[in-house]
Amino acid sequence: MTTTEDSTPRVDVATASVAVLGGTGDQGRGLARRLALAGNTVYLGSRKLERAQQAAAELVEGESSTIDVRGLDNTAAAAEGDIVIVAVPWDGHRELLQGLVEPLAGKIVVDCVNPLGFDKRGPFPLEVEEGSAAQQAEQILVESRVTAAFHHVSARLLLDPDVDEVELDVLVLGEDRAATDTVRELADRIPGVRGVFGGRLRNAHQVEALTANIIAVNRRYKTHAGIRITGL
Amino acid sequence: MTTTEDSTPRVDVATASVAVLGGTGDQGRGLARRLALAGNTVYLGSRKLERAQQAAAELVEGESSTIDVRGLDNTAAAAEGDIVIVAVPWDGHRELLQGLVEPLAGKIVVDCVNPLGFDKRGPFPLEVEEGSAAQQAEQILVESRVTAAFHHVSARLLLDPDVDEVELDVLVLGEDRAATDTVRELADRIPGVRGVFGGRLRNAHQVEALTANIIAVNRRYKTHAGIRITGL
Repeated sequence: MTTTEDSTPRVDVATASVAVLGGTGDQGRGLARRLALAGNTVYLGSRKLERAQQAAAELVEGESSTIDVRGLDNTAAAAEGDIVIVAVPWDGHRELLQGLVEPLAGKIVVDCVNPLGFDKRGPFPLEVEEGSAAQQAEQILVESRVTAAFHHVSARLLLDPDVDEVELDVLVLGEDRAATDTVRELADRIPGVRGVFGGRLRNAHQVEALTANIIAVNRRYKTHAGIRITGL
Repeated sequence: MTTTEDSTPRVDVATASVAVLGGTGDQGRGLARRLALAGNTVYLGSRKLERAQQAAAELVEGESSTIDVRGLDNTAAAAEGDIVIVAVPWDGHRELLQGLVEPLAGKIVVDCVNPLGFDKRGPFPLEVEEGSAAQQAEQILVESRVTAAFHHVSARLLLDPDVDEVELDVLVLGEDRAATDTVRELADRIPGVRGVFGGRLRNAHQVEALTANIIAVNRRYKTHAGIRITGL
């Protein structure tokens, strides 16, 4: 898909609402919290409405300032959000997206799923038929503007009230220039985070898989590692 | 292969000689130059002795200080170096290593080969039967201590006399703790560079492939990008 900025709708990240599918997981809650703190309305999606509502309420109650996080089931969240982040477990990725082709049509979708396995030697990347989680999303969501980003965020840091800035560059991948620009701007809204264009979707696999290396770094150095791109 | 520091020979990176196979390529010459400037004797290997000698002479002549770089054919360089860096094109990787099993036995081998393809849409990772170039090396060099590192170095920056410090973390992968520690120390000898343990060899593919993303960054931002690991 080739699009130009002229032919595609502009999304204003300052006023856009953001849906986080799989929003009750650590990564999803962490992103929801930081984007809500940045001023965005966030729709936290989950398979079960009650779980989403409970997680949303806990996030709101945990802040001293007012944030706008609302729990919905994944389908309703996908329909409501101007930008939709996919943060579900890899296990249910394909099935979830197959059921959301219509509500996600025309929207910027941000896939941040890392297909990883774990055994006693640690984490390793899983093979993905389509090449990567992001490419699987692209093949299913034929009417959406699919991007990939936020793979390496540390949920622990995103959720930590004592961490004001998250030292991390978020690689944003995609074919649609305006969409990757928008997602970079969205990443920039989290203090400390910088969105960096990271290539086409066919180069998403290694960005997803690099999470295994970051976990290896975390284990060896007892830290919550991230990456920065030098030379920018 | 499992080894412990007690059962394996210690390599002193301050006095070790370093062979760079495929040393006439940009990446190989860049690493040779920086390690020679750090004080190591470097054996520059090439398929053709004359080309190696010429490249070595050019490196020596290019510096105002004295550096020790000697040109050899790849087999002789592999035999001479205490530590051996493999920087050949992916095309000839397997064949070269199959011919060097004996001279590389017992040695620390550092594979820095990135199996990439290029088409009109840019770079993309090639599929590797063994999983990665590093794992291919591990399967062939059964008597060697195979590590993977130096994938993301910018040859341009390594060769630039105006660049005093190269802002880069080098991810070092391997199963052999003492070997990865030694290679991290070797990386640390290049000003600005820091060696960081990056996981087991089964997680080498994505580190090699990430070079495609770094090339995408370079093209978009007109730079010579590298990576840093945050949280260390």
